[in-house]
Amino acid sequence: MDYDAAFIGAGAGGYYSALHLLKNKKKVLIIEKEKFGGECLNYGCIPSKALIELSENINYLQDMPGISMQYKIDMKEWQKWKESMISRITGGAEKLCLSLGARIIYGTGSIKDKNTVTVNGNEYTAENIIIDTGSVPVKVKGIDDVYYNREILAIEKIPKKLVIIGGGYIGIEMGTAFRKLGSEVYIIEMKDRILPEIEEDLANEVDRKLRKLDVHIMTNSKVLSVKKDNTYNVSIEGKDDIVADTVLMSVGRIPYIEGTGIEKLGIEMDGRFIKTDLHKKTSIENIYAIGDVSGAPMLAHKAFYDGYVAAENIMGNDTIVDYRAMPFVVYTDPEIAFTGKTGNKYNKVPVMANPRALTMNQKDGFFKLYYDDDGTITGAGVAAPRSSEFITEISMAVEAGLSIDDLFLTVHPHPTVSEGLKDVAERKN
Amino acid sequence: MDYDAAFIGAGAGGYYSALHLLKNKKKVLIIEKEKFGGECLNYGCIPSKALIELSENINYLQDMPGISMQYKIDMKEWQKWKESMISRITGGAEKLCLSLGARIIYGTGSIKDKNTVTVNGNEYTAENIIIDTGSVPVKVKGIDDVYYNREILAIEKIPKKLVIIGGGYIGIEMGTAFRKLGSEVYIIEMKDRILPEIEEDLANEVDRKLRKLDVHIMTNSKVLSVKKDNTYNVSIEGKDDIVADTVLMSVGRIPYIEGTGIEKLGIEMDGRFIKTDLHKKTSIENIYAIGDVSGAPMLAHKAFYDGYVAAENIMGNDTIVDYRAMPFVVYTDPEIAFTGKTGNKYNKVPVMANPRALTMNQKDGFFKLYYDDDGTITGAGVAAPRSSEFITEISMAVEAGLSIDDLFLTVHPHPTVSEGLKDVAERKN
Repeated sequence: MDYDAAFIGAGAGGYYSALHLLKNKKKVLIIEKEKFGGECLNYGCIPSKALIELSENINYLQDMPGISMQYKIDMKEWQKWKESMISRITGGAEKLCLSLGARIIYGTGSIKDKNTVTVNGNEYTAENIIIDTGSVPVKVKGIDDVYYNREILAIEKIPKKLVIIGGGYIGIEMGTAFRKLGSEVYIIEMKDRILPEIEEDLANEVDRKLRKLDVHIMTNSKVLSVKKDNTYNVSIEGKDDIVADTVLMSVGRIPYIEGTGIEKLGIEMDGRFIKTDLHKKTSIENIYAIGDVSGAPMLAHKAFYDGYVAAENIMGNDTIVDYRAMPFVVYTDPEIAFTGKTGNKYNKVPVMANPRALTMNQKDGFFKLYYDDDGTITGAGVAAPRSSEFITEISMAVEAGLSIDDLFLTVHPHPTVSEGLKDVAERKN
Repeated sequence: MDYDAAFIGAGAGGYYSALHLLKNKKKVLIIEKEKFGGECLNYGCIPSKALIELSENINYLQDMPGISMQYKIDMKEWQKWKESMISRITGGAEKLCLSLGARIIYGTGSIKDKNTVTVNGNEYTAENIIIDTGSVPVKVKGIDDVYYNREILAIEKIPKKLVIIGGGYIGIEMGTAFRKLGSEVYIIEMKDRILPEIEEDLANEVDRKLRKLDVHIMTNSKVLSVKKDNTYNVSIEGKDDIVADTVLMSVGRIPYIEGTGIEKLGIEMDGRFIKTDLHKKTSIENIYAIGDVSGAPMLAHKAFYDGYVAAENIMGNDTIVDYRAMPFVVYTDPEIAFTGKTGNKYNKVPVMANPRALTMNQKDGFFKLYYDDDGTITGAGVAAPRSSEFITEISMAVEAGLSIDDLFLTVHPHPTVSEGLKDVAERKN
């Protein structure tokens, strides 16, 4: 065999898994159709966080008493910075793989049989194959020529009027950011609330803040058509049309398997996802699937984790995934973080009681800690500034089987937003 | 007896301890000389974080490619916001104590005998007395009429030229903030490096960034005199005088016991500190001392913790302090956080490898994880944005006896700065 492992796709999960194998002296082939680093690094989590960061800084200064501020954005210049920042990350990952001996081939990888992959007309053999082909945005027939995550994050001018179809986390993150950067924003959601993928009380905090920011939220609303001329005309069932210069379509993502040849191999599917067991193996013993293509949630850190588990199994270390404390974060205002699961009991403390948040002029949100009858922590939901940075405390507590008393007695530095986790762990008398 | 517990001082430790007793139906008297909430809330950690937050937002926008920004600060207006923000915190704490039945008396509290306190000429008896009188800045004879933490945080105009005497954490936090707000800043430190209270490699990151910001750092430098006319003239041994409009004195803090009468009671001291055992008891059984006055480190979260332990003992629950994972944080650039202790081994990863930090246009710093030969985590030192928010992960790991593998396998959300802790926990092959 030419390789110990061949990767179809160098997304977050793929390159991370490859690195783990390479560090353990395995021979690795990586086949990538587009850009090293995949959707997250190039077109998703990384550029979106950069844009959100910018919008939050501007919004903070605009709202701060005593400060008067004017600014101009040259988005072309900013995009150059963004691209160089991303290149530093993706280039660094790619170089590290190469320096550890990986072969990287650009082209569409396909699986011929259980030990053979093809790319650019050549065949390579591998003991194991890892499918990490990711996901693509859902497209709706008849709605063409709109923006998706890639296009909206590559814009060279802030939209004047932005219509977002789909109030899930991508739509809401982008809507919040562009509103803070000056766009007039409409969010159109078919369900009866925004962020249907997260707990309702967390979503409500974001909804309230968006309305304070004068974002137009339309729930229970169905887009009938989007017509593009010089501008877009968005037609909504039972409501007035909206005319806008930019329309973002963010109604979900679906697994991407085009060109991989997995249909011919008869690999079992689970709906649109490739079915995997806890070892991240597909129905064919030596073929693995990781990341978005292998099941929800479609998150980069889940892909990293999948990739690590697959690599361990390839190295003969029997390892299974444990999604008990798989965090979910949304970079909205307030920032949302959730991990673990709800429990029989919970405590709740408002952000208003958190001194560090108040020093940031932030008052919205809450800390909610879930636990069992005996006090064992089962999970947490937080709507608070920087919650993504400290939710792992709770993931760790869940995995280590810690109690609310353990959390309460762990000294949290003052003043931090994370102190809210200590406060919410105080036993009620 | 009139009360179960009488507090001399309503600082962070005092009011927190009182609240714990009040929630458990104890009768509590709180005597406060100045402001409820003490130094931290009124004049220290809280207003300083608000100022640092402002300076960081401005600096970020000034440095961001593609953004051109002009701003004006009306510090009088900003101070009003700051005061109202602080009142919300201190007022909330005070009201909560009152609603739970506390008696609060403003005046200088003094201990007459082991069960009697006096204030404003009246006497009250209590089963237990808790001393929480805090600390004050060190003043140097002959250097008068300069700014200390209280005055610098109350200024109504950004200094043109600011000389800071003392390169400890207060001096460095303020120097960084005012430099980012436009002041020309000189930091004069007697020792051979700034931040002598923290590990040298962490301090070096801050030193390097300060120099990039064109802050003038003078180590091994002794101030001979500070003369004030219309401006200040700062004379330094072997160097040219510096003329400045503002001089901040931050050469340390000392415990404050004036007026408490503890000398007459014969309470044992430990240098300038009140000596306490692990129960936070002084040499007199029913008199406790907590927070700054009872020993280093002088940090609000240590005071909270002391206050909780003292309250537990007063309620008859034999409880001792465990400072194994007492965090230390400094809100510099990069932000510094340390917890636990160094170990036989360590891993180190640069912030440059952290995608989330790069989205913030931050590249300086590192993650350093200490562990024993068997992989048990002993502590960590981090110089990275928002490190104060996620250092508690490591405190928790130390207290729960977790290993680097446990930390590595805890899924950290992507992209976060806290992922650096996962990366630094990867076993070296």
